[in-house]
Amino acid sequence: MKSREHHIRIAVDAMGGDYAPANVVAGICEAIHESGDRLHLVLVGPEDSIRAELRDYGRLPGALTPPSESYSIVHAPEVIDMHDLPTAALKTKRKSSIGIGLHLQKDGQVQAFVSAGNTGAVLSAATLILGRIHGIGRPTIGAMVPTALAPCLLVDAGTNVDCRPQHLLEFAMMGSIYVSATRNLAKPRIGLLSIGEEDTKGNEASLAAMKLLRKSGLNFVGNVEGRDVLSGDLDVVVCDGFVGNILLKFGESIPHFLKTKFKAFADVSMRNKAIGLLVRNALRQVLKDLDYQEHGGVPLLGVNGVAIIGHGKSTPLAIKNMIYRAEEMVLKGVNKNIQDSLASINE
Amino acid sequence: MKSREHHIRIAVDAMGGDYAPANVVAGICEAIHESGDRLHLVLVGPEDSIRAELRDYGRLPGALTPPSESYSIVHAPEVIDMHDLPTAALKTKRKSSIGIGLHLQKDGQVQAFVSAGNTGAVLSAATLILGRIHGIGRPTIGAMVPTALAPCLLVDAGTNVDCRPQHLLEFAMMGSIYVSATRNLAKPRIGLLSIGEEDTKGNEASLAAMKLLRKSGLNFVGNVEGRDVLSGDLDVVVCDGFVGNILLKFGESIPHFLKTKFKAFADVSMRNKAIGLLVRNALRQVLKDLDYQEHGGVPLLGVNGVAIIGHGKSTPLAIKNMIYRAEEMVLKGVNKNIQDSLASINE
Repeated sequence: MKSREHHIRIAVDAMGGDYAPANVVAGICEAIHESGDRLHLVLVGPEDSIRAELRDYGRLPGALTPPSESYSIVHAPEVIDMHDLPTAALKTKRKSSIGIGLHLQKDGQVQAFVSAGNTGAVLSAATLILGRIHGIGRPTIGAMVPTALAPCLLVDAGTNVDCRPQHLLEFAMMGSIYVSATRNLAKPRIGLLSIGEEDTKGNEASLAAMKLLRKSGLNFVGNVEGRDVLSGDLDVVVCDGFVGNILLKFGESIPHFLKTKFKAFADVSMRNKAIGLLVRNALRQVLKDLDYQEHGGVPLLGVNGVAIIGHGKSTPLAIKNMIYRAEEMVLKGVNKNIQDSLASINE
Repeated sequence: MKSREHHIRIAVDAMGGDYAPANVVAGICEAIHESGDRLHLVLVGPEDSIRAELRDYGRLPGALTPPSESYSIVHAPEVIDMHDLPTAALKTKRKSSIGIGLHLQKDGQVQAFVSAGNTGAVLSAATLILGRIHGIGRPTIGAMVPTALAPCLLVDAGTNVDCRPQHLLEFAMMGSIYVSATRNLAKPRIGLLSIGEEDTKGNEASLAAMKLLRKSGLNFVGNVEGRDVLSGDLDVVVCDGFVGNILLKFGESIPHFLKTKFKAFADVSMRNKAIGLLVRNALRQVLKDLDYQEHGGVPLLGVNGVAIIGHGKSTPLAIKNMIYRAEEMVLKGVNKNIQDSLASINE
């Protein structure tokens, strides 16, 4: 494994995602090309497949073949796919790209791990192998939600369904530190998702979390409602994973719903059909904002290391952006900040 | 109070809604005109204001002035507005249109009550004055959500934030009976909102509710996800009021979000601006489906009587449709069906 000392070293799950290893190889080549020599990427997966994919990629017109010192390959013969049950797979597939990639980080050979593979498996393996940050109750995964302005982080996005107030407080703090690091915001605005803006509105857990947030010293704007998520007025929206998952999947269904409605509109008349064609293109451009890939994955917050998790359908662009997210988390010392903040939010 | 015996008699809160009494008076006049002589409507509110409004309405071109035997007025000098705290207002304003209207029903002088006023006050007053259906744990309010096909009932829409599994089961049963009555469906398809379709996915309350629903004899299709709400594959979607309220308000914010996005699109170029104008009209037509007023209010389910609650911004059309919803609930014996079903869903 060749490398230079000053590089940030990131392990990339070569087998993660529906279009692996092709999209992963293309993504790491683009990242290396674009970032100059500041990164060393470690591709983890079946060595033969990775080498074959690198050869194929190199034959493409305009291929950005990386210099050999900018990457290395670590052999991992097994693959955990999207249908595997996370905890079972970690036991039966001990030489998976996810397990080996995370062990490289545990052993200090890389500083971060990136995967567009089975989210549950990455979450379980990272928690098991890297451990939690001391004092954090539950690691969490957020999601970047498009808004009228900059995207906001919805946390938890589905990892923890039944949450205690303390968990919600920790999600707020970790989300705030992550957003602060990746968007260079001094004080991200944090809202607690509830059913009214007044401090008296909420369910049992949210009402108790609200009190913890009020005295946390975080930039907490108070309760926010469903309608505030897309407003652009917030940088971090906190909720339990049950609400977060339902809201995100509801949001993801909107483009299809609109397409169905516009199609019905177009079918009314020839004039509508003509307008419908124009609308379709406008709609596509408008809805591309709802696209996950620009954001390039989300962090697993609360584990004792850096893990970025991507969508199964990650494109090379998404893989590249996931690598940059991982780099930012390392450079900005996100985990150190989380550790330092734990004392202050709990008074 | 003149009336004929075979009429269905419905009390209407003349002061309910932001545009009361004007929209209420216009709405009842339209309902009486359209329904022939099958309804007798009782306007409840300050008598002078109502009479003045009826006179004003009668002077409009094309006014559908109702025959005097088709309506009556019951004086209620006090008004609970949107800023009043429900339980406090019921104590301090004992002669409110909401309180007196519901007492008319309690005393058997009308069979239903309709209001576009303070939702919390109608809920509290109806529960207090009419009482709950014997065996129902918590009265609930649902909301009609537009889908790719027919609208579906999301229940609970925000009334009960922390729910026990038995409450969710009762919401499912009551929602199913209401939808069955108003849409003439033999077996409405019921989904339980969760974070995955498998029976193992959910939070504590939803997992336990799932088990109750599986053996309830209802047409329960299983767990559904956020993306299924708008699909048109479901007639009733069950969740607690915390999730329901957040989801509904998120959905309500989509049109504004899209308008902002399309505006940004239009500002890019002259060509986009021209397309933007066409899009705006198409979008308006498409989004009018998201409009509450066609549905004309939602029922308060689980109280020992009929109460239909409307949006504060109810138009005359919405008021008219609320009156029809109330009529349907009476004619179809929704409450009797709820009472009869209680034994069977609990085995």
